[in-house]
Amino acid sequence: MATLSSDLRIDIDRLSDRLAALAEIGAIEGTEGCARLALTDEDKVGRDLVVSWMRDLDLTITVDSIGNVVGVMGGEHDGQPVMTGSHIDTVRTGGRYDGNLGVLAGLEVIETLRAAGITPPRGLAVAFFTDEEGARFPPDMLGSLVYVGGMGVEEAHAIEGIDGATVGGELDRIGYLGPAPLPAPAPHAFVELHVEQGPVLEAEELTIGAVTGVQGISWTEVSVTGQSNHAGTTPMALRKDPAVVAFRTAAFVRELADELGAPQVATVGRMHLHPNLVNVVPATAEFTIDLRHTDNDVLLDAERRTLEFLLEAAAAEGCTVTTKSLARFDPVEFDDAVVACVEQTALTQGHTVRRMPSGAGHDAQMLARVCPTGMIFVPSVNGLSHNPAEYTSPADLEAGANVLLQVMLELAAT
Amino acid sequence: MATLSSDLRIDIDRLSDRLAALAEIGAIEGTEGCARLALTDEDKVGRDLVVSWMRDLDLTITVDSIGNVVGVMGGEHDGQPVMTGSHIDTVRTGGRYDGNLGVLAGLEVIETLRAAGITPPRGLAVAFFTDEEGARFPPDMLGSLVYVGGMGVEEAHAIEGIDGATVGGELDRIGYLGPAPLPAPAPHAFVELHVEQGPVLEAEELTIGAVTGVQGISWTEVSVTGQSNHAGTTPMALRKDPAVVAFRTAAFVRELADELGAPQVATVGRMHLHPNLVNVVPATAEFTIDLRHTDNDVLLDAERRTLEFLLEAAAAEGCTVTTKSLARFDPVEFDDAVVACVEQTALTQGHTVRRMPSGAGHDAQMLARVCPTGMIFVPSVNGLSHNPAEYTSPADLEAGANVLLQVMLELAAT
Repeated sequence: MATLSSDLRIDIDRLSDRLAALAEIGAIEGTEGCARLALTDEDKVGRDLVVSWMRDLDLTITVDSIGNVVGVMGGEHDGQPVMTGSHIDTVRTGGRYDGNLGVLAGLEVIETLRAAGITPPRGLAVAFFTDEEGARFPPDMLGSLVYVGGMGVEEAHAIEGIDGATVGGELDRIGYLGPAPLPAPAPHAFVELHVEQGPVLEAEELTIGAVTGVQGISWTEVSVTGQSNHAGTTPMALRKDPAVVAFRTAAFVRELADELGAPQVATVGRMHLHPNLVNVVPATAEFTIDLRHTDNDVLLDAERRTLEFLLEAAAAEGCTVTTKSLARFDPVEFDDAVVACVEQTALTQGHTVRRMPSGAGHDAQMLARVCPTGMIFVPSVNGLSHNPAEYTSPADLEAGANVLLQVMLELAAT
Repeated sequence: MATLSSDLRIDIDRLSDRLAALAEIGAIEGTEGCARLALTDEDKVGRDLVVSWMRDLDLTITVDSIGNVVGVMGGEHDGQPVMTGSHIDTVRTGGRYDGNLGVLAGLEVIETLRAAGITPPRGLAVAFFTDEEGARFPPDMLGSLVYVGGMGVEEAHAIEGIDGATVGGELDRIGYLGPAPLPAPAPHAFVELHVEQGPVLEAEELTIGAVTGVQGISWTEVSVTGQSNHAGTTPMALRKDPAVVAFRTAAFVRELADELGAPQVATVGRMHLHPNLVNVVPATAEFTIDLRHTDNDVLLDAERRTLEFLLEAAAAEGCTVTTKSLARFDPVEFDDAVVACVEQTALTQGHTVRRMPSGAGHDAQMLARVCPTGMIFVPSVNGLSHNPAEYTSPADLEAGANVLLQVMLELAAT
């Protein structure tokens, strides 16, 4: 009697072994982490390894001209496949789970189905997208952006990295300048398994996050100019202290986030005073404001209120202000049906689950432009990511991969 | 008929010429400023020049074992002389007036009296004290501190500078390790002419400040430790953001100063966030708090309220705090009679005048420990000091030196 597909379970040891084998490439000595910046020699060796595993699984492999690699099981179907995937490039101080999990869990799903002799009615695809991190070549999520037609190939090839190399040149050099056309045909649906990279699931003792979308991001750099003066001899009434404007605005941004409530987040993570001396009223204060929300109207309102406060605080202090947008992305909403499928599958498998937005960017948000899309989160211990100490327990990896398996089968059934 | 001493006036051209000649030593190219860090070769050349002027004026010159140089006119008197003076060392980016004015105006007073054939009933002395700036050897006001017995000579000689040299070694090397005993006998009275180094006189369009004392100073370094996290994925409720504690406390410090009113001043001039990135909740925030007031009780209260706010803000954010006192000096009050004499003399000479505290430290505050003391301020354009662009108009220099002349005569008459 054949196994019921709903009873299928992935092999966590096999998945962990693959995660460990991939993490050995570019391993950061003395840690569990690794460094495989996009399109470097380390990235090439990692790609070659993952492609060899795709070959072992008898997938039909295509490489496109931005270096995205897609392996398809059951390529004989007419319609587009259900796709999963993520990225295998890392930041310079990367962990072994960020991105890699989504790709290798996809392979684990395929291998589990192969072993059970199950061929779903629709093809299944596993992709890894180029330069998701953007740590070598800006912007991040470059490969998936080009995949869905958000940027032209020529423009992408011309991008210069932090080391002066170009995307096109490096793709050619490492042998991943493929022939598949771009933008690619839209998949039937896309679902990505990823570590949360935040503390919410762990704090609430939950196993699965059914990701509802990606927060909109607003990064602003603020420069305030005042009048540098002696801190002892300048009465308060005669000061034009740009640091006071910065402190007040930064404190306001926190109050605003508290007032707006979750999922609003707001951070002033960078500040520089000049000349930055104990007994000198600063001449200038520079700082950044990071605002994020899932609802673009709320995000716009938070931006407007922050700017209003900043300008009033500067005027009150007799300082001048310039602002510069460093990044601005609208929120992305994932497909209701896919989100519900993730949530229901987790519950069916006996896991605790919550709907939640993603605070970080992911390839899935690019795929959401062209097909029904969702994501599955598993907990990150201490919320750590982009850190060699990034960790997710085997039990949580297993839970996430099993949810991925059933969600892909469900999506492939339609 | 002899000139009435109250009609005597100094020669501003001669004073300006001496200021210019001294500023040529260690001149900062392309500016009006100069750099003569204490006990360097430049300081030695500057000292030699001023000593040569003292010799030209036939003063009795003594050098003590911390390198303070005192020139006395009319050494035949029994009692102690009325002393004026200041310093001729500068910071690395110094102006030509800070300190130098007080010394050269003293010489100008003597020369004016000599030219008029006037010998006051009590001796007059002009001093320059070693290392007032503290820019090479901490603490500042070192020479006058040792002069009044606030630090022993051996301890002072052992002080190591920013370049590894010692005070004793450098005094010997430049030939200013003199024989005069320390602590020195207290003068009859001390009065110092100095540029304001702040904006108050200019802002109020006044010529003379009758300095009532020196503000007490409290410098605290604060380190706040929280939990570094991803700015996108960490909900506000789960944050321990040390920067928020720093911003709130820094904003509070300003509100506190505004509430307490002049002469309270409060400055957060230095802040460093780590890792200081736009999208990372910082792990640590370090900043300094500079509080000053003329009334020690108010200063103590400001310190207490600031610490209370800091600890509450840190507790609310789940952060830990350490504080370290970088400096703490009680306020100094000058002698009522000397302050009144400065004020009255300015009025008599037709100048506008106000009583005011000094926000910066001066040699006079050390002399105030051992004799009736006062200071005369003249305006600093734009409040600038410790800056090659430091400037005081010849008219204001002249006014200040003429007030000094009459105040010294007045003090010497008793």
